[in-house]
Amino acid sequence: MLLSEYPASELMLLHKRLREQYEQLKLSKVSLNLVRGIPSFEQVALSERLDGILNGDYQSLSGIDTRNYGGLDGLIEAKRLFAPMLGVSPDDMLVAGNSSLALMFEYVNFAHFIGVSGPGSAWSLLGRPRFICPAPGYDRHFYICEHLGIEMLPVPMTDAGPDMQKVTELVESDPSIVGIWCVPKYSNPTGVCYSAEVVNQLAELPRLAGNTFRIMWDNAYSMHDLESETQVNSLLAEARRSNTQNAVVAFGSSSKITLPGAAVAFMAASRQNLRAFKQHLQIITIGPDKINQLRHVRFFRDFDGIRRHMAKHAQILRPKFRLVLDKLSSINGLGAGEWSHPKGGYFVSFNTLPGLARTVVKLCAELGVALTPAGATFPYGIDPDDRNIRIAPSFPTLKDLETAMDAFICSVKLATVEQLLSTR
Amino acid sequence: MLLSEYPASELMLLHKRLREQYEQLKLSKVSLNLVRGIPSFEQVALSERLDGILNGDYQSLSGIDTRNYGGLDGLIEAKRLFAPMLGVSPDDMLVAGNSSLALMFEYVNFAHFIGVSGPGSAWSLLGRPRFICPAPGYDRHFYICEHLGIEMLPVPMTDAGPDMQKVTELVESDPSIVGIWCVPKYSNPTGVCYSAEVVNQLAELPRLAGNTFRIMWDNAYSMHDLESETQVNSLLAEARRSNTQNAVVAFGSSSKITLPGAAVAFMAASRQNLRAFKQHLQIITIGPDKINQLRHVRFFRDFDGIRRHMAKHAQILRPKFRLVLDKLSSINGLGAGEWSHPKGGYFVSFNTLPGLARTVVKLCAELGVALTPAGATFPYGIDPDDRNIRIAPSFPTLKDLETAMDAFICSVKLATVEQLLSTR
Repeated sequence: MLLSEYPASELMLLHKRLREQYEQLKLSKVSLNLVRGIPSFEQVALSERLDGILNGDYQSLSGIDTRNYGGLDGLIEAKRLFAPMLGVSPDDMLVAGNSSLALMFEYVNFAHFIGVSGPGSAWSLLGRPRFICPAPGYDRHFYICEHLGIEMLPVPMTDAGPDMQKVTELVESDPSIVGIWCVPKYSNPTGVCYSAEVVNQLAELPRLAGNTFRIMWDNAYSMHDLESETQVNSLLAEARRSNTQNAVVAFGSSSKITLPGAAVAFMAASRQNLRAFKQHLQIITIGPDKINQLRHVRFFRDFDGIRRHMAKHAQILRPKFRLVLDKLSSINGLGAGEWSHPKGGYFVSFNTLPGLARTVVKLCAELGVALTPAGATFPYGIDPDDRNIRIAPSFPTLKDLETAMDAFICSVKLATVEQLLSTR
Repeated sequence: MLLSEYPASELMLLHKRLREQYEQLKLSKVSLNLVRGIPSFEQVALSERLDGILNGDYQSLSGIDTRNYGGLDGLIEAKRLFAPMLGVSPDDMLVAGNSSLALMFEYVNFAHFIGVSGPGSAWSLLGRPRFICPAPGYDRHFYICEHLGIEMLPVPMTDAGPDMQKVTELVESDPSIVGIWCVPKYSNPTGVCYSAEVVNQLAELPRLAGNTFRIMWDNAYSMHDLESETQVNSLLAEARRSNTQNAVVAFGSSSKITLPGAAVAFMAASRQNLRAFKQHLQIITIGPDKINQLRHVRFFRDFDGIRRHMAKHAQILRPKFRLVLDKLSSINGLGAGEWSHPKGGYFVSFNTLPGLARTVVKLCAELGVALTPAGATFPYGIDPDDRNIRIAPSFPTLKDLETAMDAFICSVKLATVEQLLSTR
């Protein structure tokens, strides 16, 4: 039965019980964290063998001494290893340093201030360039835009990806739109996988835009299936069919595969884009850490090695996601919110009743359970409906996760009941 | 006897002999490289133990699990290890990724487009910001300015550092000057070490400039003594005495200490500068490769460990520099050029007679000996006197270096004699 249909007396009784439960939980003085979408100790331990794996042999397959300078776009064997993660050919790849975020920042920085195709093509010259930001989305994408002064236009997410009708209308009507952020598989935080139709529409989209328009395709969770493997089409491949490949820049990393912070980041793009970006990169750096790339090559050997490794991650993560969903199922049918049932990625996305996200986050904080600040998943930190809360189940132990979710459920119910009471 | 004082007949005879020698050298069809200021195989082998040194123990002294995300400004023990290299306290430090060039680029990019002290302070708002570039200098510093559209003003180098009278006059008279590049110890390529007086004058310089003026103090060769240890004063320490510390940003790395490309880069700055730059950095990245920082900490243990390690480098490099200088001494007194006698660093700087650098580089190329393009050590690649040639003795074997230097000497003499003959 929906809480909103409870008779007043029952609702007040429920409120009293929830308050008591809440005060009780407060006494246990926990300090738990559902903020960080980061691997657990158990997960990073899967890659401990990385340090020392070279066993004194620093030579790459192609005969490069990885101990010395050079190799701006990374080892060829690293390109081969990671290319299937982005559904591209090794020739489309550039393998870089430890952070795909840094690579994405540098690409946007380059496109904004320097220009993707020479002087005169910089986005900043447009005065007020704009970016489409499907929301809820990844806060760090939004910070890049905000930091560089690129205006963000939020567009709703559907179950199949961004609302492509809205996206198309915007691009068609506004020539100052220079790009769109996409997390095509297990989107952060919704867990949405872009449908074949959406990928196809995105491949067509650049026809409506200017030459410097870029789709930032952050395929951060391409291997992060919890159950069976989900397939999301390669946008670069689709774009080649539509002759829009120059508008696509794809990114990935091994951050949530091996060791976050000591991982390998990479990008894929058209020849023209790679050439232009490498001209920029060569001003910045002499080259990436090839030794760490070689470690990854030796560790995985090939793409199947990554697959087998990801199965181990899934085994660790599955019980945590199941626990979160089990706990949430206890409020099924109460009308106290709705949530994602992700098949992969790092998050469960929870929507409270409108106007309650901030309240729930605050209630949880008072119980010692840290959640991502409400609004963080929206451009400028503004969730127009104040509904979305991102739950990251990966880092805590199962026991801590259970405690944290009890606090969360209690807070959601309490906030909902108090809202209902106040509006009656 | 100076070649210019040779009687015509003797000069013509000499020319004939040099031509013959040159043609003879051509027949040996060598392919040698004096371009790259990079360590040799023997040198990088000194650090082979780095991979695997953690032996499964990824925990930092301060209890951080280096396998996971986080730690924007690096491990505290890495700060402690590298701080003495810049003559600063660990609190002044930020330890980053694999490339000090990347860190310097990011700082200039930040100051130019974003602003060192918030909106309105970006150099780019000045319209045509300018940088003082002591020359000859490091080509990659100059590329950063050129790439970002920062105009470069060359200033001559003296034996004690940049010509400080010229520098001071420029800063005093031109408010659009926003910075200066410095390589204070074993300057690239001249090998000059900045005197105490020059460091002191540089510490006073910001008083004449605007608030966003920055001295880019690239202390790349702070440990790279060939003979005894040379001391160059810490600009940050001097600047604190003059209350100009906010104008100083110092950089260094372990690139030519451990493994180039898989090294650790760092910077030192005032609290205010660190705070501002970290606010920028946190948009770009979640953090540097802490594992590689930990490897360096375990490898060296402390600053004395770095010192002992550098003594091994010096042992390998010394014979190479001696060979170059021995070979050059064969043209002593001929008036065919002058050259540096560096006590450290990676280069010997050679000045031909005016107008001959390009000719010599070309003559060498025809003999199969690659030299850095003439002019590369000057802003915009323009050596006004076409004199300077950078010789990098570190990478070739002694045998190859000998062959290469014979070709170089022959080319210098030939070019000089031909110039003398043509102007008589």
